[in-house]
Amino acid sequence: MIDKEKFDEWYHEIVEKAELCDKRYPIKGMNVWKPYGWKLMRNIDTIIREEMEKTNHKEVYFPLLIPESYFKKEAEHIKGFSEEVYWVTHAGKNELEEKLLLRPTSETALYSIFSLWIRSHTDLPLKTFQIVNTFRYETKMTKAFIRVREIHFFEAHTCHTDFEDAERQIKEDLEIAERFFKKLCLPFISSIRPDWDKFAGAYYSIGLDVLMPSLKTLQVGSVHQYKQNFSKPFEIKYEGVDGKHYYCHQTTYGMSERVLGAIIGIHGDERGIKLPSSIAPIKIVIVPIIFKGVEEKVMEECRNVKKEIESIGLSCHLDERDKTPGNKFYDWEMKGVPIRVEIGPKDIEAHVITITTRDGIKKKIRRDEIEKLKEELNEYDRRIYEKAEKFLKENIHELREIEKREGIVELPWCGKEECGKKIEEEMDMKSLGVGIPSRKCKEKCVVCGEKADKWLRLSKNY
Amino acid sequence: MIDKEKFDEWYHEIVEKAELCDKRYPIKGMNVWKPYGWKLMRNIDTIIREEMEKTNHKEVYFPLLIPESYFKKEAEHIKGFSEEVYWVTHAGKNELEEKLLLRPTSETALYSIFSLWIRSHTDLPLKTFQIVNTFRYETKMTKAFIRVREIHFFEAHTCHTDFEDAERQIKEDLEIAERFFKKLCLPFISSIRPDWDKFAGAYYSIGLDVLMPSLKTLQVGSVHQYKQNFSKPFEIKYEGVDGKHYYCHQTTYGMSERVLGAIIGIHGDERGIKLPSSIAPIKIVIVPIIFKGVEEKVMEECRNVKKEIESIGLSCHLDERDKTPGNKFYDWEMKGVPIRVEIGPKDIEAHVITITTRDGIKKKIRRDEIEKLKEELNEYDRRIYEKAEKFLKENIHELREIEKREGIVELPWCGKEECGKKIEEEMDMKSLGVGIPSRKCKEKCVVCGEKADKWLRLSKNY
Repeated sequence: MIDKEKFDEWYHEIVEKAELCDKRYPIKGMNVWKPYGWKLMRNIDTIIREEMEKTNHKEVYFPLLIPESYFKKEAEHIKGFSEEVYWVTHAGKNELEEKLLLRPTSETALYSIFSLWIRSHTDLPLKTFQIVNTFRYETKMTKAFIRVREIHFFEAHTCHTDFEDAERQIKEDLEIAERFFKKLCLPFISSIRPDWDKFAGAYYSIGLDVLMPSLKTLQVGSVHQYKQNFSKPFEIKYEGVDGKHYYCHQTTYGMSERVLGAIIGIHGDERGIKLPSSIAPIKIVIVPIIFKGVEEKVMEECRNVKKEIESIGLSCHLDERDKTPGNKFYDWEMKGVPIRVEIGPKDIEAHVITITTRDGIKKKIRRDEIEKLKEELNEYDRRIYEKAEKFLKENIHELREIEKREGIVELPWCGKEECGKKIEEEMDMKSLGVGIPSRKCKEKCVVCGEKADKWLRLSKNY
Repeated sequence: MIDKEKFDEWYHEIVEKAELCDKRYPIKGMNVWKPYGWKLMRNIDTIIREEMEKTNHKEVYFPLLIPESYFKKEAEHIKGFSEEVYWVTHAGKNELEEKLLLRPTSETALYSIFSLWIRSHTDLPLKTFQIVNTFRYETKMTKAFIRVREIHFFEAHTCHTDFEDAERQIKEDLEIAERFFKKLCLPFISSIRPDWDKFAGAYYSIGLDVLMPSLKTLQVGSVHQYKQNFSKPFEIKYEGVDGKHYYCHQTTYGMSERVLGAIIGIHGDERGIKLPSSIAPIKIVIVPIIFKGVEEKVMEECRNVKKEIESIGLSCHLDERDKTPGNKFYDWEMKGVPIRVEIGPKDIEAHVITITTRDGIKKKIRRDEIEKLKEELNEYDRRIYEKAEKFLKENIHELREIEKREGIVELPWCGKEECGKKIEEEMDMKSLGVGIPSRKCKEKCVVCGEKADKWLRLSKNY
């Protein structure tokens, strides 16, 4: 893991060195996705889609542009986003009759149509999602994948007959998150955000956060219970079994390209990024170790091994470039390929291949046991997950009083907003909220001294 | 195929009846992709991606927004698109220093970065593509998938050392188009567009057109030779083997959601759409034929058949809804599922399944020959392709003089713009251009009477 002090500079450079993006596009905060980075993002999308399919969500695509009048239907929502939206005011040489905005998130685009799709309780639950780009005019310093102005975004939107069914959905969302982040070897924590920091328009919000090597947290996902806050202004009603009409209860679940930012940051090291095998476009790279005179023999063996690796379902690349093995090692380590296979004359003689995992474990595998590479990938994933989990756990601190600490802290809190904000101020941190699952607290609030039944989680964050 | 007269109304309704899109979104020309329609589009994208991968194109993603100054670098290009672009002028409460436009196509977004990526002849050819949405403020009547304002778009962009290599790319593009449209069972024609109708900024343009049942053509793809028209204003230069610097030659290849519009229009009939098996999300649907007393036996057989069909790699859906078989037939025909399997007590007794292809061929298949479904799908694809091909061929007319005809006509033409435009006017049609491959012509120009060595193709179009 990268040292705390070096992290931000390392991250700034690695995203271009590993050929994930190009930051030279002439609009601040809007980067170009290079082929390797885009492939990673698309592989992450594929994992999301699998989870959505398993849980009966249907994929839709709604227009990018939203009329101003629709955007303004939910009062808190517009308040929360009005500073951040891009406005389309003209088309061709005409000024538009009504201004249009680029979606910063899609509630107000989807919900006018949901009100047409939902008629009866038999239409519920309605479970949809889309993978789109959203646009937010960030005023803070931008950072590739972490704070950008065009955001590759996943958003699930669901409608339910009642609050309880919406709560069940939120439970399902948290289970999806467990499986999803596990596949990416990313340990995370979930917290119910304090009321003063919930999503604009939500009844309550849950944040999913990871801890970066800088000891700052990064929100990589969020789940929102909307209750009927949107269904009322958007008139999303259904006829119940009793023939009466009711407003739906709604939830959303969102994630973004920040997930890639987290993978880069948490698993990376001085040599480059380190990919979980689930999203690595190349899981195994073969580097021939060639000396004059044995070239063809080695290359033939490399080609045979490649075929065998592919035949067990693993993506494999044979690096035939005219470069030294050392230079090749450097390139593939930079790009985070999980396993490197070296094959030289000695390996052939001994009927083995030499493997080195991206986290530095070197061993020989018998030539007739290529199948073992699968196990090696699993073990590699497990190790990088556990390393990150250890780092996360070591940096969560339960405190009894205000004191300067880095990472994530938890302090006894009475639940009052004024005390929570006072803690934020004194700690010079932002509240993440109350952890899920919640832990019992029998202390006194560090601000007012009254009974505290909650631990308030805080951290510095991105 | 739908009657010419009924086509436009049929098309207008079918896109919603088959649950492909919802046209009630509050911005004209911007429709909602419903799950089934979006799935079809994504399956089309998958076929494109496979072709791109095979031909060593790399997928990238460039920002949606383009600064006005970049857009204006190529004079013809801005002229061609200036009436059609959406302008972002404000963000939050601020007026932007420089106006940004939503990409109507991405040349001006990509090429400033290409000039940074390309240094040497060893960086060439550069072959990239992206699948993105583009935005055009259409003033003509909008039509789902055919003329919309937010367009799901595919665009390949390539850079080459010289004109000849760019020409080779165009040849490859036409081969890709052959394979791609064949997979979608869409016969098409390709034509070199006349100079007065080429793409804004191109040296020459090739249009790929299909013929719709309305006897109007629909451009479903285009390939452009840019020569150095963009590389000069965007400074895309490389160092040749001789150490000197040269401007690149460039090409593009574009397609869009119109491909889906073509599939709907060309294969559809009174019962609904008719999908080529390559993109059908459900290739085979099983409808149980149930009578009281035999229900469980039939359902068990249906489940077994479903498993067997899936085991040979075909997507299969068992329709267990509480509806009559007739109603189920209606639904799946509307949605274009290639093969319907009926299983009732008599089928079980006779050790068969009864299949009906979406183009109306009914037969029985022996229960132990499920594998034959693959062949049936191939035959079905072949039939719907050939039917469309016959329709196309029957509606191309070689004329010797101006006379009113429907469909596609070809007339002897001397090659002069004024004569071409006169032919357009008198035929009340638009030029498609000169066919590829070109056919010899030894007639006289129908306008000026001079020697005509070309056939000018024309049609009414969308």
